[in-house]
Amino acid sequence: MKQGKISVGIVGATGYTGVELLRILLRHPQAEISVITSRKDAGTAVTQMFPSLRGFLDELVFTAPEVDALKQCDVVFFATPHGVAMSMARELTDAGVRIIDLAADFRLKDTEQFKRWYKMDHACPDLLREAVYGQPETMREAMKSARILGMAGCYPTSIELGLLPLMEYEKAHPGTFDLRTIIADSKSGISGSGKKADVSLITAEMSDNFHAYGLKGHRHQPEIVQQLRLLSGCPQLDLTFVPHLLPTIRGIHSTIYVRFKDAANPLDLQALYEKRFEKEYFVDVMPAGSHPETRSVRGSNFLRLAVHRPGGGDLIVVLAVEDNLVKGAAGQAVQAMNIVFGLDERTGLDWPALVP
Amino acid sequence: MKQGKISVGIVGATGYTGVELLRILLRHPQAEISVITSRKDAGTAVTQMFPSLRGFLDELVFTAPEVDALKQCDVVFFATPHGVAMSMARELTDAGVRIIDLAADFRLKDTEQFKRWYKMDHACPDLLREAVYGQPETMREAMKSARILGMAGCYPTSIELGLLPLMEYEKAHPGTFDLRTIIADSKSGISGSGKKADVSLITAEMSDNFHAYGLKGHRHQPEIVQQLRLLSGCPQLDLTFVPHLLPTIRGIHSTIYVRFKDAANPLDLQALYEKRFEKEYFVDVMPAGSHPETRSVRGSNFLRLAVHRPGGGDLIVVLAVEDNLVKGAAGQAVQAMNIVFGLDERTGLDWPALVP
Amino acid sequence: MKQGKISVGIVGATGYTGVELLRILLRHPQAEISVITSRKDAGTAVTQMFPSLRGFLDELVFTAPEVDALKQCDVVFFATPHGVAMSMARELTDAGVRIIDLAADFRLKDTEQFKRWYKMDHACPDLLREAVYGQPETMREAMKSARILGMAGCYPTSIELGLLPLMEYEKAHPGTFDLRTIIADSKSGISGSGKKADVSLITAEMSDNFHAYGLKGHRHQPEIVQQLRLLSGCPQLDLTFVPHLLPTIRGIHSTIYVRFKDAANPLDLQALYEKRFEKEYFVDVMPAGSHPETRSVRGSNFLRLAVHRPGGGDLIVVLAVEDNLVKGAAGQAVQAMNIVFGLDERTGLDWPALVP
Amino acid sequence: MKQGKISVGIVGATGYTGVELLRILLRHPQAEISVITSRKDAGTAVTQMFPSLRGFLDELVFTAPEVDALKQCDVVFFATPHGVAMSMARELTDAGVRIIDLAADFRLKDTEQFKRWYKMDHACPDLLREAVYGQPETMREAMKSARILGMAGCYPTSIELGLLPLMEYEKAHPGTFDLRTIIADSKSGISGSGKKADVSLITAEMSDNFHAYGLKGHRHQPEIVQQLRLLSGCPQLDLTFVPHLLPTIRGIHSTIYVRFKDAANPLDLQALYEKRFEKEYFVDVMPAGSHPETRSVRGSNFLRLAVHRPGGGDLIVVLAVEDNLVKGAAGQAVQAMNIVFGLDERTGLDWPALVP
Repeated sequence: MKQGKISVGIVGATGYTGVELLRILLRHPQAEISVITSRKDAGTAVTQMFPSLRGFLDELVFTAPEVDALKQCDVVFFATPHGVAMSMARELTDAGVRIIDLAADFRLKDTEQFKRWYKMDHACPDLLREAVYGQPETMREAMKSARILGMAGCYPTSIELGLLPLMEYEKAHPGTFDLRTIIADSKSGISGSGKKADVSLITAEMSDNFHAYGLKGHRHQPEIVQQLRLLSGCPQLDLTFVPHLLPTIRGIHSTIYVRFKDAANPLDLQALYEKRFEKEYFVDVMPAGSHPETRSVRGSNFLRLAVHRPGGGDLIVVLAVEDNLVKGAAGQAVQAMNIVFGLDERTGLDWPALVP
Repeated sequence: MKQGKISVGIVGATGYTGVELLRILLRHPQAEISVITSRKDAGTAVTQMFPSLRGFLDELVFTAPEVDALKQCDVVFFATPHGVAMSMARELTDAGVRIIDLAADFRLKDTEQFKRWYKMDHACPDLLREAVYGQPETMREAMKSARILGMAGCYPTSIELGLLPLMEYEKAHPGTFDLRTIIADSKSGISGSGKKADVSLITAEMSDNFHAYGLKGHRHQPEIVQQLRLLSGCPQLDLTFVPHLLPTIRGIHSTIYVRFKDAANPLDLQALYEKRFEKEYFVDVMPAGSHPETRSVRGSNFLRLAVHRPGGGDLIVVLAVEDNLVKGAAGQAVQAMNIVFGLDERTGLDWPALVP
Repeated sequence: MKQGKISVGIVGATGYTGVELLRILLRHPQAEISVITSRKDAGTAVTQMFPSLRGFLDELVFTAPEVDALKQCDVVFFATPHGVAMSMARELTDAGVRIIDLAADFRLKDTEQFKRWYKMDHACPDLLREAVYGQPETMREAMKSARILGMAGCYPTSIELGLLPLMEYEKAHPGTFDLRTIIADSKSGISGSGKKADVSLITAEMSDNFHAYGLKGHRHQPEIVQQLRLLSGCPQLDLTFVPHLLPTIRGIHSTIYVRFKDAANPLDLQALYEKRFEKEYFVDVMPAGSHPETRSVRGSNFLRLAVHRPGGGDLIVVLAVEDNLVKGAAGQAVQAMNIVFGLDERTGLDWPALVP
Repeated sequence: MKQGKISVGIVGATGYTGVELLRILLRHPQAEISVITSRKDAGTAVTQMFPSLRGFLDELVFTAPEVDALKQCDVVFFATPHGVAMSMARELTDAGVRIIDLAADFRLKDTEQFKRWYKMDHACPDLLREAVYGQPETMREAMKSARILGMAGCYPTSIELGLLPLMEYEKAHPGTFDLRTIIADSKSGISGSGKKADVSLITAEMSDNFHAYGLKGHRHQPEIVQQLRLLSGCPQLDLTFVPHLLPTIRGIHSTIYVRFKDAANPLDLQALYEKRFEKEYFVDVMPAGSHPETRSVRGSNFLRLAVHRPGGGDLIVVLAVEDNLVKGAAGQAVQAMNIVFGLDERTGLDWPALVP
């Protein structure tokens, strides 16, 4: 375990993921926010941009993103658009800094896929290979020694954890599920679209509205498929992913559909899920018959799950809720930081949701 | 076509479906609201309960629901809980009154199923047999001479119309689709839960929240299956229906998943949908690639559809939006009334959505 | 009264006021939308930008704003930022076209004040002098023959009509009220901020939020003061105007505070208000003791009022609600058009609010 | 300072104030929730009613409210309707238990006023006399030794703290302000109406709505007047209080209007406010010209203030925001508990708002 406080740098802290990192880390007993950068807002005080942090980070000022300052940190979080983390990764890792990327630079292992979805060449394929993708619950051991973590995104976390027990069961019992026909019908609160000046996001457009999007292809789909194939050992696995935009600020609800190959399969799903997540503090398998609510995790690092088998047929319906900015982004990243530095995973994250 | 104004009675007009009928009918050039009943609120002026109607229905007062007064009407709408319409149906039809039931008494043709889902015996199985279930778009001809219309509910309308072209194609080309595995992932605005004093519906509970419900079984499921089997001619057809509650007032978005049996089937879905609904004024097939928004039909009688085939695979994704209180209830009922009395279907319904 | 349809041009129809004009006029039995302009979106079909209008204005395409085309219209509405209407006003009025400006070019009679608040010189002070500012309820006679109407804005309409009976009473009985201390604490739905890409308006920022703004000075304040002085005949009248932003799409609620000079003044306020608005179809004085709700006018052209005198003291509290886009903008403008062309004022506006 | 943990009882913990106490106290390092009562839900596990607390209070079960169990506590919070706290106050104080009442039993010092507003006789006028009403910021010293605290309500806290510097200035400089004409135009999120099955509160009614209420008289008005008179030493002080209901879950925004007697009074209001609250951790005086947002305190114990003097005239406009359930209720009560037991006031309350 690390001695002294962990010196933290945050690159790109003016968006929702960034301010959420600030909100969490300012209360983390072992972390110290040392450097916080924003190219556009260098020189601005944090509390001028985020009055909700007045009284907490009154001295902190955004600086331009300079590698030299970041090299002094123990860990650097990237809460940036894709392309930034990989541009600074080599210098930082060479300097012994751990990197936790909340964007997409270290998610897709296949550089061709990366290029196809993100329209740029990957800057450091060797670092991509060694980077660890995922969540603490799926990749804890690998994370401990990783130099670079490519954190799973918000939608992917809800789906990958929602399916984890089934994937592992399939690995142990190949052919149990029809993994070519998985459907994830996901709904996300609008903070998932980021803090940006976009007419389609303004309150008069979206506060009493709901729609699907991304049916032509969404960047999170290949990331999820890659991980589910790894977890299940099934290379034929495929997924139809249909995201929707919810008129709430936070919260993701994924409704996930998987079929048994044999409708008569007697597997006790509730027991399987409870057993798998028994020791996972941040994953809550709710009682049989539950319908988890997005608000039940609002502002917290918990993911709540329920597993159903309507009418006892061949179809499994998993309901998974998380706060997209916490378990789906900043909270999970801090959970990973705790692992990397040998702390109790719950450190700085151990509070309940804000309800009502 | 009817001469003179249509004399209309409304039983149970204090709920959301009822007040929506009032809002529509008070502007209908051929209808006259003659009787409006509410057991609980008899004696109350309509505008006292609904100040938004001040200036329009200032003389109208709720009366106790008495058959004698209703017998004087040309048509009676039931915007009541189930069980009410069937209790008055015989007397009214005997008196020559047309019945349009917005509740569930005349939806399920199988009286055993009715009893199972609604926990009561059906009061008039013979009238149930002759009643016509559905929407104008599926049942127009039968509606013209029907004495009793059992209007399709809000979720069912979005799903039945969303699948109509596929069902009819299946009937003509049996075996095209795998109809045993249909999934409808539906999301409804909260007015669909009715105007009732229920803690789980209050704003502090639901205005920043989202969850599924009814996974143990929802009354709308058998109704939809009954109709889809009829339309497709496929008795093996089955449907998994997962409703969710949206923090909006109005609007249903159904995301519907159907598979081709042959992933290589070259059917032009966009053309199929456009052709089928070409002459249906209230069904709008949006351009290929669209993602219809619930607000685009807010307060209007339109249902908007988009049909997708992600990645050109075997899965069809239909997106259907409607206003649950208009096309999903009161508007569609007035559309049916227009058919019954030989009027242009659009009469009194021909206005656009309220956007923004 | 005009023979044949009124040919209407709309300049700047891509914002909320513009699309609301479209929504209203497309159902107006005596109006025909002939020209609709948008510099930025020339060539775009209206229904591509506003899918909610599909089925209604499918042929209509935005054109560049050219005076020659607009000259062919009977009336041109300006739903533009300030500065546009005055730049085209002379040519259009010379061509006999009536101008109805929903922006600020013809509101402030004092060109110095105009310059101070809008940071530009007025282009046509002579036309400004002849223009008629206000609402139908205050300026009906003058509107009939006016060539240019400077429509009162959304906040001003709620305050000016909310105070109208008191102002007229003061004129007849000078010294009744302490008019130097009026306070208008107004709350507006967010569509009042316009359809623009502004981070502070996005749903994640404003959908669960509330705040005041403009305390350093708001452009609507001088406009209201000008009109209240005119109505009351009291040049010392002054007003503190504090606007707030509500997390609703539509709706303004003005809470207005005025004091009697004599706390024992026995004036029957309820009777005064009822009498004054008895013949005003679109102004609804609610029963004594009422608290009007913004939703009770949602999407409609009504303004609802209640007048209170808490504890029978010297303070009068007026509550006024309107839909900022209808009675506060587009609906009122069409009401004015009806007056200008000798039609029944209610034409095309005679529908109730959308509730729930 | 207390040795060992503070044993806490909560009477009536099923409402919003109660669950907020739970949310705060479960993280309080010096408190232990020992007894939690609910007459109606005795026997129910806390996490069954509040799934958001799963993982934190899994062992806690509601019990019937029995004095014997409560006597074992160090402090008992009453989060009940009025009338409950005073019925148990004598037995508990006799047993040495400190009482913190979040309801109204110990607010109004005048038993006649209490009876008038709450329609019941006060059960223990002697205890009422010794009870301390207010907030930590106004009553810190008296709270230290008080046996009974009657915590100021949500609206009153925003108004009393919003006006505190002016009241104290008036006490030192009598005649500075015209205290007979104070107006508080307050807006509250809907959780302030409680967790109850009330049709007027359901999402379909209130989520896109806004209205005033209580103009005939609101119970919070006499409580605020009592305290402002005490603070200012001005027995003529009077207040018009107009509450409104906001379609947000949490948050109060009070817009408060006070006039200088002399419009030329050169008092530096910004300096006055900053100086007065310099040492108050939970009161944040924002920079001159600010417009505090309700979300900036969401879920936190901070109250943020801005003070304006529009146009440099005689009118002062104070803007005050707080979370009605935290600084307006449960958080402030825990802050008071910290004072009573000699702890740092910030203990267990020292976290920022949840933004976005």
